[in-house]
Amino acid sequence: MKLIAFEHQQVRRIGLVENDRIRPLLGVSNLQELILLPEHILPDPHSQALTLEQVRLLPIIEPRRNVICVGWNYRKHFDESIGKREGQGPEALPEVPTFFTKATGSVAAANDDLPLHAGLTSKLDWEVELAVVIGLGGRDIEEANALSHVYGYTIANDISARDLQRAHGAQWFKGKSLDGTCPLGPVLVTADDIVDPQALTIECHINGVVMQRDTTANQIFSVARLIADLSRGMTLEPGDVILTGTPDGIGAARVPALFLADGDLIESRIQGIGTLRNLVLGTVSAATPSNRIVSLSCE
Amino acid sequence: MKLIAFEHQQVRRIGLVENDRIRPLLGVSNLQELILLPEHILPDPHSQALTLEQVRLLPIIEPRRNVICVGWNYRKHFDESIGKREGQGPEALPEVPTFFTKATGSVAAANDDLPLHAGLTSKLDWEVELAVVIGLGGRDIEEANALSHVYGYTIANDISARDLQRAHGAQWFKGKSLDGTCPLGPVLVTADDIVDPQALTIECHINGVVMQRDTTANQIFSVARLIADLSRGMTLEPGDVILTGTPDGIGAARVPALFLADGDLIESRIQGIGTLRNLVLGTVSAATPSNRIVSLSCE
Repeated sequence: MKLIAFEHQQVRRIGLVENDRIRPLLGVSNLQELILLPEHILPDPHSQALTLEQVRLLPIIEPRRNVICVGWNYRKHFDESIGKREGQGPEALPEVPTFFTKATGSVAAANDDLPLHAGLTSKLDWEVELAVVIGLGGRDIEEANALSHVYGYTIANDISARDLQRAHGAQWFKGKSLDGTCPLGPVLVTADDIVDPQALTIECHINGVVMQRDTTANQIFSVARLIADLSRGMTLEPGDVILTGTPDGIGAARVPALFLADGDLIESRIQGIGTLRNLVLGTVSAATPSNRIVSLSCE
Repeated sequence: MKLIAFEHQQVRRIGLVENDRIRPLLGVSNLQELILLPEHILPDPHSQALTLEQVRLLPIIEPRRNVICVGWNYRKHFDESIGKREGQGPEALPEVPTFFTKATGSVAAANDDLPLHAGLTSKLDWEVELAVVIGLGGRDIEEANALSHVYGYTIANDISARDLQRAHGAQWFKGKSLDGTCPLGPVLVTADDIVDPQALTIECHINGVVMQRDTTANQIFSVARLIADLSRGMTLEPGDVILTGTPDGIGAARVPALFLADGDLIESRIQGIGTLRNLVLGTVSAATPSNRIVSLSCE
């Protein structure tokens, strides 16, 4: 099942995606409500199916606390930035996952433009990631049972201001939390429709050029392991969003380094989920919607 | 004005503190509501003043997103841990504040017991901190104007699992986010009653022994500067909680190192606000209330 969040005629709703059409659901205005009331997946008999042109997309989920992220979860990505971390960070892979967070205000929708934050950073970089939405909370979750806590999967791009990420005492929060730097969506695929989260092709294209391409099979810590480690002594809540790390191919590790510029088109793709498109806008104003998504199918 | 959050007869309320008595306010059940509706500071004419024995204290605020924290904001604290960070962290003070976050589930009340998380960490440590609650949100807030965005001040202890803080790729989130490791309270003093947030004595006592004692005059980055830096490109929201760093005297930097143990009493004190008391309980169960606060006055 593919779910989408949108606004139509000034009403916020959740819809089922079927062949690029959206069937609005009855009685839920956002994904957080649906996660707590899963029996509410009922198409609204009074609403007809909508086209993408008729709606304004919203972030597929609006997290109630910071987005939880994982660093260095693909071997080649860890290796590519050795020596490029300005003396910061470990030389050997940590034995446990590297967790940090992005502020809730960084979350943006699939069609939102990404502000360049030009006065603040000159090193805005891409990081396509498989995002996990927790359905059933818990503490000390067993790895063997962890996937049963997943509500579904979506696409994220953990846009990172590399200069700020390094400057603030090597803690990444500020460089990862600028407004609009966590586009999420366009759809969430429920867990029952992702047979194996460790077998998905993941790609990031900038202006049509493939910059990142890997498979989640190469994750160092699996989705199940991440949930188990994260929940040790720390209660996970329904609706928590976990970004599971990015493959190699980021701009900061290229020679020469390459960063986002005004007008760049970012396409973040994950097999079986779809494509998240965001255009970089050279202004620090709030993210503004445009209509860049032409299809919700998985090419 | 001193405010307190409590439960009485199964109802969650906010009260005004006057001479160790609590006068319940009308029509607000938590501080987040009061921040958005400041005109609601009206004592409930139908409620009589309550004593501390009659109520169960709640966290003075339940943040809607992660608690934002600042590392290394007192010079002597930065210096005390040089060489004790296991090769991690900068040798020179960062030129901008070090921001990280604690999960919302870490927030606890003034009377809650602190779980020792004994199976998970053997290095649970104290960090008394002045906590700032944002009243008026905003982005790119000017330092000169930043204190007008503060709703009030409270006391926090940024309890830290030092082993986990280091192990997770040197990102501090996991080691700072165990359940119950961010006691907040017991009261919030509104900004108009704190003449100068940079002139407050701050102390942490363990079992009656002074472990930390300094003044916020020694903060490297003032409260106003922290708000200005944090809000650059990142919108602050009403109700955001910012912990402004801890003075020297933490357990990990002592010779020999000293960590929290079952039965320890932690008293976190800030001049003009009061004392936050928490007892360490050698269990990983959720924080449980007891009745340890004997007075809300500022000794």
